[in-house]
Amino acid sequence: AIEEEFNYEIKDKIIDEVVVEENHSVIAVVGEDFRKTPKIAGQVVQSLGSNGINIIAIAQGSSELNISIVIEKTNLKKALNVLHDGLFTRVPKTINLFLVGPGLVGGELLKLIDDESEFLKKNLNIRIKLVGLGNSKKMLFNEKGIDVKNWKDDLQKYGTQINEQKFFDKMKKLNLPNTIVADATAGDVWVPYYEKFLESNFSIVTPNKIANSGDINYYNKLRQIAKRNNVKFLYETNVCSAMPVIKNIKDLAASGDEIIKIEGVLSGTLSFIFNSLKENKKFSEIVSYAKEAGYTEPDPRDDLNGLDVARKLLILAREAGAQLELKDVEVENLIPKKLRSKKTVAQFMSELNSADEYFENLKTKAADKGNVLCYIAKYENGKAKLGIEEIGKEHPFFGLNGNDNIVSITTKFNNVKPLTLSGRGAGARYTASGVLSDILKIANPQG
Amino acid sequence: AIEEEFNYEIKDKIIDEVVVEENHSVIAVVGEDFRKTPKIAGQVVQSLGSNGINIIAIAQGSSELNISIVIEKTNLKKALNVLHDGLFTRVPKTINLFLVGPGLVGGELLKLIDDESEFLKKNLNIRIKLVGLGNSKKMLFNEKGIDVKNWKDDLQKYGTQINEQKFFDKMKKLNLPNTIVADATAGDVWVPYYEKFLESNFSIVTPNKIANSGDINYYNKLRQIAKRNNVKFLYETNVCSAMPVIKNIKDLAASGDEIIKIEGVLSGTLSFIFNSLKENKKFSEIVSYAKEAGYTEPDPRDDLNGLDVARKLLILAREAGAQLELKDVEVENLIPKKLRSKKTVAQFMSELNSADEYFENLKTKAADKGNVLCYIAKYENGKAKLGIEEIGKEHPFFGLNGNDNIVSITTKFNNVKPLTLSGRGAGARYTASGVLSDILKIANPQG
Repeated sequence: AIEEEFNYEIKDKIIDEVVVEENHSVIAVVGEDFRKTPKIAGQVVQSLGSNGINIIAIAQGSSELNISIVIEKTNLKKALNVLHDGLFTRVPKTINLFLVGPGLVGGELLKLIDDESEFLKKNLNIRIKLVGLGNSKKMLFNEKGIDVKNWKDDLQKYGTQINEQKFFDKMKKLNLPNTIVADATAGDVWVPYYEKFLESNFSIVTPNKIANSGDINYYNKLRQIAKRNNVKFLYETNVCSAMPVIKNIKDLAASGDEIIKIEGVLSGTLSFIFNSLKENKKFSEIVSYAKEAGYTEPDPRDDLNGLDVARKLLILAREAGAQLELKDVEVENLIPKKLRSKKTVAQFMSELNSADEYFENLKTKAADKGNVLCYIAKYENGKAKLGIEEIGKEHPFFGLNGNDNIVSITTKFNNVKPLTLSGRGAGARYTASGVLSDILKIANPQG
Repeated sequence: AIEEEFNYEIKDKIIDEVVVEENHSVIAVVGEDFRKTPKIAGQVVQSLGSNGINIIAIAQGSSELNISIVIEKTNLKKALNVLHDGLFTRVPKTINLFLVGPGLVGGELLKLIDDESEFLKKNLNIRIKLVGLGNSKKMLFNEKGIDVKNWKDDLQKYGTQINEQKFFDKMKKLNLPNTIVADATAGDVWVPYYEKFLESNFSIVTPNKIANSGDINYYNKLRQIAKRNNVKFLYETNVCSAMPVIKNIKDLAASGDEIIKIEGVLSGTLSFIFNSLKENKKFSEIVSYAKEAGYTEPDPRDDLNGLDVARKLLILAREAGAQLELKDVEVENLIPKKLRSKKTVAQFMSELNSADEYFENLKTKAADKGNVLCYIAKYENGKAKLGIEEIGKEHPFFGLNGNDNIVSITTKFNNVKPLTLSGRGAGARYTASGVLSDILKIANPQG
């Protein structure tokens, strides 16, 4: 047919003979008066691009009512979905979610997606479809959507043995638009896959701190890949659960302002311990109580050694532009030196009262000046450190209560009085809500 | 030439004779391997669209290294600038700024643009060019950029008589890409032009609260126009100066969360007055001191009547989705009833001590319960109101100091402990930094 159309030209050798490129598809977007609606052509091309679909050729005629696009055949279904989502705004936009680690936070996320599905459809016109699921043993896929009410049974019954590479291969093969991977695991199993996800135009959301507090080169690389592929890597819940600390620091850094200092109480557990000290309780008693109440990790030393807070501070410092590694963070370990060799949690806890005098002395010294003790994570002058500080009435952390988190940010434009954010910095459902919010930020980039 | 190209087809009547459409231009974007770089075509089309440039025809051939675009001739220069900014990332992106109202905040904005120009070029790759300037008397334009060091003299010397319609007509005629209007006036003169600016694909940034606290229909209309034209209307500094209160409420509302309650101390002046009351000072003494120190408006009644706070609360409530009018905000006026008929500021101030007993009584009643007084703006259950409240130790505003602003936000996902933001809520340079940050948010939408 093409040869016939161009028979004059081919005869006169004006154009070459037709070369057939196989495995392509043509999509025509038909509508009224595209030339007067500058946004439509842009939307079409942009949404294909951000889903990693190459446009091989495109044409919009001057008097035409359609845009024709040639793409690879393997992308046809994906492209049609993308265009459908982008152009028909009355139809909910579908997010294809792959969740690994349906534990405490991951499980709450699935509950939240179930609880909120009507709200999200009605208010944001978004539908979240769980397409893939993997825990430490099994994995399950369903392109039509895994039932979020019944995922536990279904994963158990229909799941196959988990294998990270196979999980990733399946995602690639499904080739779905608006794909987001949520890594709600606590370990580092999926971290090496982050770059593969982003390279494949899948966005990532995660409460997992490991990638962001690991090697700085990998940290930078992930951001470059995400930027190049126009996908997102979001992790608001890395620090202070869903409290928008990372977002606000990121926004300040992007707003022409310079971050001079970040201070924070970034651990609910340590916040609780130091706030309870103000109430004349003994250190060992407070830690025992917090352990019983489930405010600490099963082994409270995992809180007291400061490592978790060090990771959080490192992440905040990097958002502010610091090129630091975890080993550069100076940490004051709250585990008394002579107890560091204890093997079991029980041994440690039974001798913890030997540290009471030390904390009692510190506290009295502070109180004599009208001050209180606070375990503060601080980034200033390119240096990150954590430790016990005496603070007075004028300090924004002086009145801290319960297990609240608090962060204050001093910038070039606001060096008189820092911007301070405080609130609840923990809780599985609250963290899950932060992960959901990251998902929706990707789904709904205009806000 | 076209007739020649198609002479076979025209002879055989396969295609119509050529119709010449006048006043169009063709732009060719030439580069290597567009088909393997999905983002480029998208960038081209998107950036033209968001600058209001209609694409009349577009073509990208399958084996070609270029994209050809037909546009109206009047947009040629603008389109070339847009494409240059968008594609050549090493060249700084130029923002064409039109500022009306170079007063306290506007003047600081110009200083800031001068002070920060190197920083912005180096760190964000952005150049802000002041193209138009208008105060209450004169206006001045320079497509090459008005000297921000010398604007006062230049406006005085070379400016012509100000006329809003002519100012707008000149902007339209210049037809520059990445145009932003900053309205730093205090009055309502430019408010009717907001819709015209947005319709013309000019973004608006403003610390001026009038449009956002005026008629709800106009409020909604501005947002619809901005959305349709893919331009921005930003006003972070409407509430609490540069503190990111509006942004955080907007983000929460877009994140699948529901805002249940907003509470705030939204006036530095009223914050100072009520915080000083805690220190056993008399109301009339505090107001006199604040007036002398320049913490109040020239007429302190403009602070005490609550109207300014009512506007701020209305704006926050609207961000949370409320369709309220200013008259719906219930306001507790702090001007004693018997002093409302006083004509002059001096008369009012001289008799203010007659109100001391009232505030003293309120304070004592609160103190008996361990509480303090606070003038709180509150939005809850669809209702907005301002008034004096007694608050206890558990309230996040209990420890408020000096003239700080504070806002706490309770949401569906965070109803245990509200997210609280506090900091400095005033200051001309700080407000100007917030306006600059809004400008940069438009210039640098990826953050």
